[in-house]
Amino acid sequence: MNSPKQSRPKARLPRGFRDRGAAEIMAEQKMLAVIRAVYESYGFEPLETPAFEYTDALGKFLPDVDRPNDGVFSLKDDDEQWMSLRYDLTAPLARHVAANFQNLPKPFRRYQTGTVWRNEKPGPGRYREFTQFDADTVGSASASADAELLMMLCDTLEALGLRRGAYIVKISNRKLLDGVLEVAGIAAEERDRRGTVLRAIDKLDRLGEGGVAALLGPGRKDDSGDFTKGANLDVQQINRVMAFVIPGTEKRADTLDEIRWAIQESSIGQAGVEELRQIRSILLSSGYAEDRIEIDTGVVRGLDYYTGPVWEGQLTQPVTNEAGEEVVFGSIASGGRYDDLVARFTGQRVPAAGISIGVSRLLSALHGKTVSLPPLVVVTVFDKAEAAASFAMAQELRAAGIRAEAYVGNGKMGDQFKYADKRGAVIAVIEGGDERARGEVTLKDLALGAELAKSVESRAEWVANREAQKSVPRAQLVAEIQAMLKGSR
Amino acid sequence: MNSPKQSRPKARLPRGFRDRGAAEIMAEQKMLAVIRAVYESYGFEPLETPAFEYTDALGKFLPDVDRPNDGVFSLKDDDEQWMSLRYDLTAPLARHVAANFQNLPKPFRRYQTGTVWRNEKPGPGRYREFTQFDADTVGSASASADAELLMMLCDTLEALGLRRGAYIVKISNRKLLDGVLEVAGIAAEERDRRGTVLRAIDKLDRLGEGGVAALLGPGRKDDSGDFTKGANLDVQQINRVMAFVIPGTEKRADTLDEIRWAIQESSIGQAGVEELRQIRSILLSSGYAEDRIEIDTGVVRGLDYYTGPVWEGQLTQPVTNEAGEEVVFGSIASGGRYDDLVARFTGQRVPAAGISIGVSRLLSALHGKTVSLPPLVVVTVFDKAEAAASFAMAQELRAAGIRAEAYVGNGKMGDQFKYADKRGAVIAVIEGGDERARGEVTLKDLALGAELAKSVESRAEWVANREAQKSVPRAQLVAEIQAMLKGSR
Repeated sequence: MNSPKQSRPKARLPRGFRDRGAAEIMAEQKMLAVIRAVYESYGFEPLETPAFEYTDALGKFLPDVDRPNDGVFSLKDDDEQWMSLRYDLTAPLARHVAANFQNLPKPFRRYQTGTVWRNEKPGPGRYREFTQFDADTVGSASASADAELLMMLCDTLEALGLRRGAYIVKISNRKLLDGVLEVAGIAAEERDRRGTVLRAIDKLDRLGEGGVAALLGPGRKDDSGDFTKGANLDVQQINRVMAFVIPGTEKRADTLDEIRWAIQESSIGQAGVEELRQIRSILLSSGYAEDRIEIDTGVVRGLDYYTGPVWEGQLTQPVTNEAGEEVVFGSIASGGRYDDLVARFTGQRVPAAGISIGVSRLLSALHGKTVSLPPLVVVTVFDKAEAAASFAMAQELRAAGIRAEAYVGNGKMGDQFKYADKRGAVIAVIEGGDERARGEVTLKDLALGAELAKSVESRAEWVANREAQKSVPRAQLVAEIQAMLKGSR
Repeated sequence: MNSPKQSRPKARLPRGFRDRGAAEIMAEQKMLAVIRAVYESYGFEPLETPAFEYTDALGKFLPDVDRPNDGVFSLKDDDEQWMSLRYDLTAPLARHVAANFQNLPKPFRRYQTGTVWRNEKPGPGRYREFTQFDADTVGSASASADAELLMMLCDTLEALGLRRGAYIVKISNRKLLDGVLEVAGIAAEERDRRGTVLRAIDKLDRLGEGGVAALLGPGRKDDSGDFTKGANLDVQQINRVMAFVIPGTEKRADTLDEIRWAIQESSIGQAGVEELRQIRSILLSSGYAEDRIEIDTGVVRGLDYYTGPVWEGQLTQPVTNEAGEEVVFGSIASGGRYDDLVARFTGQRVPAAGISIGVSRLLSALHGKTVSLPPLVVVTVFDKAEAAASFAMAQELRAAGIRAEAYVGNGKMGDQFKYADKRGAVIAVIEGGDERARGEVTLKDLALGAELAKSVESRAEWVANREAQKSVPRAQLVAEIQAMLKGSR
């Protein structure tokens, strides 16, 4: 291992990936448990699919089709078949349903949580690996299935501690936009052009009205000079689309009646309105009113596979980001109806709808609410030949439900106290030779010690140390520590 | 979506990958929670690293180096750098420690659980994606650190429900084999040859004594005709190695004294013996005797990066496999000391040791102990226009802690009962028009109904159905179902 320096690998993370520490992991665990509990109470059951799918089975539905690898990580298996890492949990579900259709209960309702990967340009706060939590209902075209997913989302966000009013679920319908495009003179058959329109609208948050208008028209050059081709709508068509989707625009349709006006006689548009009406009717009579779920034609969702209603859960209150700035976080969940995904495999249409919670995103929005481990006791090792005695004490403490560790390093006592500090331990246990002879141990209150040392700066550290520690009979170890932990809470 | 058949992708899983259903996922969740709780009680804290590492950072330590991709899944990032999916959780830890060394408490003790990927030849029960649960102590060369990991493994296996005696943790030391090879006249500098010897021994379970002897000698041709080159030891050297590691061999060394004899004056071998003596001393005085942890020179572990003590947790009792056969399952956890992994990056040796539990493997060994969801109530929808009434009932039930779902499909009542059956529901709720007018609902005991229909085969199904169902006031819905669920437990 004395290799020359130039041959050593660098200890660095791949671009767009990161390590995560205890506080975030534990907060995520807690969040996943809450979501799981709500979904299971609704009768959804877990399913897990692998990280890899055959590339052709996954399909290409990501909005960002400008990148060379189409947004997915792909590699060739040793039998020369292309495999890709899943970029969401929906495409794998469609594959699972198509492969197991006969044996599944219909409707089939499953939840799945897991990591997804996007081969996208990384940036600040924009990672290429993150956690999603999906619930889907496959095999029902009913508005009940849609409504249930939306109710479940509301219940989940509230179970996660969001007050009513701190979030809003917005719903729309792809068919409405189809109707508007039809009225504007763009045929439903022009799928590519329609896709370009959808993706343009979905970038409203990032690009603003000007950017979207450019993408609806001839196209747009971004800051780096890259040019993205647009949908080539004419000015009147652009105005029609913008009026329909841009919040704050006077002509924006916020009610079903207004929407009916905008889509006029388009039958696809009318079908979309009717679907929304049915969903809303079930929601209202189930007590989910417009303070929680509202119609908003600005919601389109970028993914290409949606065929009907689409929805998006948003935080309405500003949250403080990692830089300490107040920001409106926006979308933390999304989904919709995708009736054609299973048909890709089987040729037979299977109605389906789902909702996906962006766990990493929501966690980062709620990052104030971290979870902490119970207080830690570090049992120091005064004499390395007597390490077993420290292990025995740590074990006794653990048996009593106290988080405790014996020091397993090679450091001297000073190092061990520094270690205990760095670990955030609240109590250190010391058993020196004299104490062992007397049948005693010393307990040091680390929090109190730090406070005493701080409050009277002139005092010598050892005085503070003495006040913060006491000798107790070895047999009283657990009881004394329990009392100290109780007192410090 | 009316694409011709030949252009449709096949709904199939990539080779060596699989979907997992509710029972297995929930059993795994429970297992992970138990391990987490034990590890946290010892003061280990969670860390998560990403799925990808730069290929050079990951290093090549997998035993199966015969395959073209060296056992890992790799791809080129768009900046032409090679990335690989992690094949274990140890190499990423070394990268994390090297990158964050200054800020970590020393010793640094973390646990990590997650998916790992091996680009290996798939086979029955042999998957290319599985879950590991690791704990590691970095920055301590002390036998305490090793002993702690071993105690923690025992505590964990017992917390998972394994009786003492149903498992055994076996420990050995790489330095012992180095000593034997030195005595046999093979220099420590011949790293490649030593590696070939290690990997040969590690295949004992799979290939038997004959296969291992062949790999220690000139080499071995497998069933498919592929030839694997051997270590080219002479007959006497092979005998020496075999005597040292093969269980059942008369000369096998099972005690420290016997081992001392086998390694004679080799100083590396003697150092290995002394390390084992220290670990065993701490274990014994902490109450972990040889019924739980024993020395066994047959343990070598295939991974190349171990530098000292190695260990392996094994199930000792036969378990029934998925085909209903009794099999001895063998290794379910393994690890050891790897003092050179961080030095790969920094040039500075950082002592480290770890233990990895093969969660997927252990789960499959304990597969009898599955977890089941609470009983399910399905609220049928008699009249689709009144779906909201069914949702309201399901919500009331959920609010009372009962797992309940309103039917969200399009089927008629017969389909809905079939669905409830397939879902394993215990009670169906029916509210027809007449019942609604009377302020009543019908509760059908699905388990009892199935039993009645079975027990008296001649009886018409509707009689059985009638006996298994009853009408109750709508206001009593929750209380009546609670009583039924209580009765059926």
